[in-house]
Amino acid sequence: MIEGAHGGDIYRRRSLPQGKRLLDFSANTNFLGMPEEVCRAIVDNMDQYCAYPDPFCRELREALSLHHGIPEEHFYCGNGAADLIFRLALAVSPPVALVTAPAFSEYEEALRLAGAHVRHHMLDPKKEYVPDHTLLDAVDSSTRMVFLCNPNNPTGVAVPREQVLGLAAACRKNNTLLVVDECFIDFLEEPDKYSVEDSTGEYPNLVILKAFTKIYAMAGLRLGYMICSDRSLLERVAGAGQPWTVSTVAAKAGVAALGCRDYVRRTRTLVLENRKELERGLRELGFIVIPSQANYLIFQSGDSELDRKLEAQGILIRTCTTFRNIPRGYFRIAVRSAEDNRILLEELRKHSGQRSPGEMDVQ
Amino acid sequence: MIEGAHGGDIYRRRSLPQGKRLLDFSANTNFLGMPEEVCRAIVDNMDQYCAYPDPFCRELREALSLHHGIPEEHFYCGNGAADLIFRLALAVSPPVALVTAPAFSEYEEALRLAGAHVRHHMLDPKKEYVPDHTLLDAVDSSTRMVFLCNPNNPTGVAVPREQVLGLAAACRKNNTLLVVDECFIDFLEEPDKYSVEDSTGEYPNLVILKAFTKIYAMAGLRLGYMICSDRSLLERVAGAGQPWTVSTVAAKAGVAALGCRDYVRRTRTLVLENRKELERGLRELGFIVIPSQANYLIFQSGDSELDRKLEAQGILIRTCTTFRNIPRGYFRIAVRSAEDNRILLEELRKHSGQRSPGEMDVQ
Repeated sequence: MIEGAHGGDIYRRRSLPQGKRLLDFSANTNFLGMPEEVCRAIVDNMDQYCAYPDPFCRELREALSLHHGIPEEHFYCGNGAADLIFRLALAVSPPVALVTAPAFSEYEEALRLAGAHVRHHMLDPKKEYVPDHTLLDAVDSSTRMVFLCNPNNPTGVAVPREQVLGLAAACRKNNTLLVVDECFIDFLEEPDKYSVEDSTGEYPNLVILKAFTKIYAMAGLRLGYMICSDRSLLERVAGAGQPWTVSTVAAKAGVAALGCRDYVRRTRTLVLENRKELERGLRELGFIVIPSQANYLIFQSGDSELDRKLEAQGILIRTCTTFRNIPRGYFRIAVRSAEDNRILLEELRKHSGQRSPGEMDVQ
Repeated sequence: MIEGAHGGDIYRRRSLPQGKRLLDFSANTNFLGMPEEVCRAIVDNMDQYCAYPDPFCRELREALSLHHGIPEEHFYCGNGAADLIFRLALAVSPPVALVTAPAFSEYEEALRLAGAHVRHHMLDPKKEYVPDHTLLDAVDSSTRMVFLCNPNNPTGVAVPREQVLGLAAACRKNNTLLVVDECFIDFLEEPDKYSVEDSTGEYPNLVILKAFTKIYAMAGLRLGYMICSDRSLLERVAGAGQPWTVSTVAAKAGVAALGCRDYVRRTRTLVLENRKELERGLRELGFIVIPSQANYLIFQSGDSELDRKLEAQGILIRTCTTFRNIPRGYFRIAVRSAEDNRILLEELRKHSGQRSPGEMDVQ
């Protein structure tokens, strides 16, 4: 990985303007921060970290099974969803695989490591990157594996569940594995209209990826999981890396997080409100905004250096230059608190050539 | 991974005799438990776990560089040393590789995942599994990669540094990568006589694996690292999996652990004392003991069901049946506290047919 290939690199040494804290809009995690219950679980289980973790994640899988109403045997847990993307690619080792463009870049990285030829299904910028029936046509008998990110990263565009199931059926007909990455789905207003997590029984060729990383703001702990009814695939995924991939800290934190239903509900309400405000603010400043349903969005600026200018002011946003099929001048930002979003908009105003309402009042 | 393939599975549901705690001799971690400084670092950095970890582990690599006196650029950190074993195998993708038998089984698992043909160099049980010059002869021009565990797992046999460097030279001549797993080396009485960590500059074909897991009893946090002067190999290892493999918890804990020099010294003294006691006790009970220099050892019992019998009494020991080239009836045990070791010996006495000194007094 090269510097700048992903958002969230808050660790690179940079000089901030005096008195300013770093504001990170470049990573898409829950701005509410880790739930209290998770912090408490990390401390309460301190005496257990000296032992090796449970390679079978029995306690966590039991909790996930109760949470989703899906048998324990259909879960495999990983060191973040990114770990599972690599394991899946290595376990399946597909000669040919299909990904959308744009999409989270690690699908392609993992597929290339596994020796796959990667085909790209170009999402149409004129249709605001909303997938249509041509995605189904792109799956043929040579396609062994498809990755679909729902909602998509970086666009925040979500595909309704009927359409995803249509893709799953087309894949099943072609003997193709469909991996649906639902890592951001809990941020949607109505996740049930989009998630296919209850369909792995009907489609053994369907894998759902989920993460604690984003919705519970546990990115620094690393925890993700997959749901799949194909036991032989689950075993191959387990064999496609070390046995102790999930730390005990992450497993304990995950069990605690699953109890935080109010936190998730509150997140959903705030993200919806704040995203609408942010979109409105960006449009008012003259930026083109791709309609998003997630906790992040992309917008286009005429200034392709915008990220560097904001960074000099202590604000990180994510350039989209490392995503395929996105023109120059696009940036991805996370939806954060109303206050943080206001600071961002105020800073963007300085670079948009528009004056602030305050300035106008004075004149 | 199947149940029983490794030690340390304390999570499987089992019924313990009333009032007994589980005593785990099956995993080789430091019996002193995690240093206080590490526990404190985990709590003190709680507000940082909501962000993505630093994929470049800059702070930790800086601390490692100071600790070892080796340039930062020569370190790559992983989710435990086991993560690095898989990444190395995938990055090198050797057609033919060599491992000793016995050795830690994950080398072979990782090599097979990477599509390698694995050759075994049989260590001679009659020579108490001490490697000799025939190991050098086993490296030929077809060998692309060699794994050497020093001290070896499960035997605890350590190879002096001159002999390891001889192997590194033979490997260099054959254009072979030598991976020396020094995960247990800090438990030796005199690590400097065995470690080759200062020789990666001289041998670009040498990789050293190290772990925090064992010596700092951080197995549940997952943290290991490799040292290597071949920058191109380090980049390929970084690309052989996800970018965020090290959690922020582990990275912060690692930095704190490196300050615990007294803890390591105390460990070394206690392990030496307690291992000698344990060896003497086992021999007195009539068991055959392979001389070990590490914090674990293997012994032979006439009773190949010994592990199950001890487990029924709440004591876990590690059967060696899953290691190659070890006859039936061998078991691996960790060196623990004097008190725990006494309990183990007392329990073993019941299964050895010998009477305890107390019983003899009564008669």
